[in-house]
Amino acid sequence: MSESTETSLLLEPRLRATKAAARVLQSASAETRDKALEAIQAGLAAKTDEIIAANTEDLRRGEAEGMSQGLQDRLRLTPERIQGLVDAVGAIRALPDPIGDVLRGMTLPNGLQVAQVRVPFGVVGAIYEARPNVTVDITALALKSGNAVVLRGGSAAESTNIVIVAMMNQALESVGLPGAAIASVDDVGREGAEAMMRARGLIDVLIPRGSAALIEAVVTQSQVPVIETGSGVVHIFVDESADLDNAVDIVVNAKVQRPSVCNSLETLLVHRSIADRFLPAVAQALLNHSVVLHGCEVTRALVPEASEATEADWAAEYLALELAIKVVDSLDEALEHIATYSTQHTESILTNDMGNADRFLAEVDAAVVMANASTRFTDGGEFGFGAEVGISTQKLHARGPMGLPELTSTKWLVRGSGQVRA
Amino acid sequence: MSESTETSLLLEPRLRATKAAARVLQSASAETRDKALEAIQAGLAAKTDEIIAANTEDLRRGEAEGMSQGLQDRLRLTPERIQGLVDAVGAIRALPDPIGDVLRGMTLPNGLQVAQVRVPFGVVGAIYEARPNVTVDITALALKSGNAVVLRGGSAAESTNIVIVAMMNQALESVGLPGAAIASVDDVGREGAEAMMRARGLIDVLIPRGSAALIEAVVTQSQVPVIETGSGVVHIFVDESADLDNAVDIVVNAKVQRPSVCNSLETLLVHRSIADRFLPAVAQALLNHSVVLHGCEVTRALVPEASEATEADWAAEYLALELAIKVVDSLDEALEHIATYSTQHTESILTNDMGNADRFLAEVDAAVVMANASTRFTDGGEFGFGAEVGISTQKLHARGPMGLPELTSTKWLVRGSGQVRA
Repeated sequence: MSESTETSLLLEPRLRATKAAARVLQSASAETRDKALEAIQAGLAAKTDEIIAANTEDLRRGEAEGMSQGLQDRLRLTPERIQGLVDAVGAIRALPDPIGDVLRGMTLPNGLQVAQVRVPFGVVGAIYEARPNVTVDITALALKSGNAVVLRGGSAAESTNIVIVAMMNQALESVGLPGAAIASVDDVGREGAEAMMRARGLIDVLIPRGSAALIEAVVTQSQVPVIETGSGVVHIFVDESADLDNAVDIVVNAKVQRPSVCNSLETLLVHRSIADRFLPAVAQALLNHSVVLHGCEVTRALVPEASEATEADWAAEYLALELAIKVVDSLDEALEHIATYSTQHTESILTNDMGNADRFLAEVDAAVVMANASTRFTDGGEFGFGAEVGISTQKLHARGPMGLPELTSTKWLVRGSGQVRA
Repeated sequence: MSESTETSLLLEPRLRATKAAARVLQSASAETRDKALEAIQAGLAAKTDEIIAANTEDLRRGEAEGMSQGLQDRLRLTPERIQGLVDAVGAIRALPDPIGDVLRGMTLPNGLQVAQVRVPFGVVGAIYEARPNVTVDITALALKSGNAVVLRGGSAAESTNIVIVAMMNQALESVGLPGAAIASVDDVGREGAEAMMRARGLIDVLIPRGSAALIEAVVTQSQVPVIETGSGVVHIFVDESADLDNAVDIVVNAKVQRPSVCNSLETLLVHRSIADRFLPAVAQALLNHSVVLHGCEVTRALVPEASEATEADWAAEYLALELAIKVVDSLDEALEHIATYSTQHTESILTNDMGNADRFLAEVDAAVVMANASTRFTDGGEFGFGAEVGISTQKLHARGPMGLPELTSTKWLVRGSGQVRA
């Protein structure tokens, strides 16, 4: 028997228990689920010291193993950050309950009453890395939408997650819900993630959160359906009719306001007819923010600070103060470049030609397509969803910023009075 | 280099051409797409003799290779069946265009106008077996919803499909659309299906249609997102308060009206308190239709014609005149049995106790849950969708009968006037 098969067998009773708990959760009232969230808030507050002690252990181990400062920062919990989690759970609790919403309803000619209603998925699996805040975050979103969760939070945050999950199990039980509705597979190491990806019938949907490599591994290996919250090779095309001052503001905002996130700008496309006026100005503004520039030949003639852009730059998601710049001859060339290199996250055109804006909006195939706005607006909070489940870059089920409804499925209810099919 | 890698490389230019054609299709008007469907109708009529000649070749080969009568029947095209396809394409053409529908729209406090609109997936892949009618059917549904298709129709129907695909390519070109929007990979044999499953970025969604084994293989192996049109281990629970005469009619209808399809009844659950009155009557009615019965011990005491039901019977999708029967003590036991053996397709309760009906509708986790109706009503046609894409048994994206909208994705359009994020 292979090691992976052994792990699957080892975990099966646990996943079965979570599936059974999901059935209880599906029948629980919104009030009970909200009470569970309240108990998690109280638990976070009451166990702050214990959580921080465990987190210090994780951080010490990480430091000893040479973990980068950036990763350590993501891993670190402080009293303030735990208070932030308490508030985040409160915000999720305050959202309207998505379960039971009627999406479509009709009475058929034979008298059958048919309604499509929103239901929980059942069991949501999450695979992520070194972010104990996600443990709380994804669990709260899942409970609010009536789902149980199976968590694989990674070895780096293992001690922290053990304390948090145990606290959340108790919180569920304190309101009469089964603790098994929140399960972790971290105790079996890497094999836990692989067992989750094979758990068809026990886990209904898998959400990977983290690096592009992690997401790619889950998407290509999982037998359980995946919602891909993917990477963003995000473009802005500055058309010849754009307001150039405003274009500088938007480009700088999209690149520097928060360069580490998926909706930040990675490649700037500029129409040739305005390149000599626009590029020196935007380059200076970006250089003032210490942005490293890579450009095509035309760009480099106008912006000597730019190094030569290679094929790798056009495909790069820098997630850093770094930008690729290309001069194009036309809207068509911009559309072609985007079709080739886009990861279908967010694309924006800056233009005063409404015909060009409409063509861009219609022809670009991405989760979010914009005209005359910063790409940083692709965000569940900005869209008014009230919760950040992630930004889907796949076309199935959810596309773009995901709110609570995207964590649900539907079912059809048919009420008859004895009808048979002719 | 492995054989499968070679095939992927061989097919890549073809899949890239189809992806490029999908972009043209996405920009094509509904009128042009309807004209393409009209040209396909005309092509089917004009090439009927040629199609039937190719089909005769396939049938002769199948017969020589010992193909079953049932498979031969599925494979066979006649002038009447081709006329049926012409009519089916006409019905699809007459449906409203789903593309461009606005699902949600809002103006954000900062003035951004945000709209979620329906768009084609791009490229839809279909993997199926020995059913040349699906070649026309799925292509018409895809074109109507603005999608290109990649088809893997199987070796048994290869000659037929070659003629049909070539005719459809010409039909596209006759209205100015690229023929590459309809591609087949049948020429590379089994490896074609495997290359499709690896074609992430080139095929947007895969729809397997056919045997449970085919669907399972695609679902577990595909790296491209799949819409699973799965099998149905369909239950009816006859509660103690059911109208027993009507219950006999519904059970017989659900089992015998068309036993070969996924929404037909496979396991009958009967409340113990009515078993002695109901079972002999329903068994007699089923035996009159030559249904083979398998029962639990209590059933067999009341219905001597029933053989002993084994564990395999509770999990069986017979798709034939065969039925498993179990007597249960309570609604709870029925719910438990369904939770264990259901494939989450269609489940129905027959009862006059509205409390029990509501519990069943709420607690059973399936694509379609019914009270007092035959399970045969789970059908896109019956639901009024006008087209039969299939019945999804997964929870992601589409669940239950799928209409044209289920063959689409969405994108968010954001229209601004220079906004940057604070």
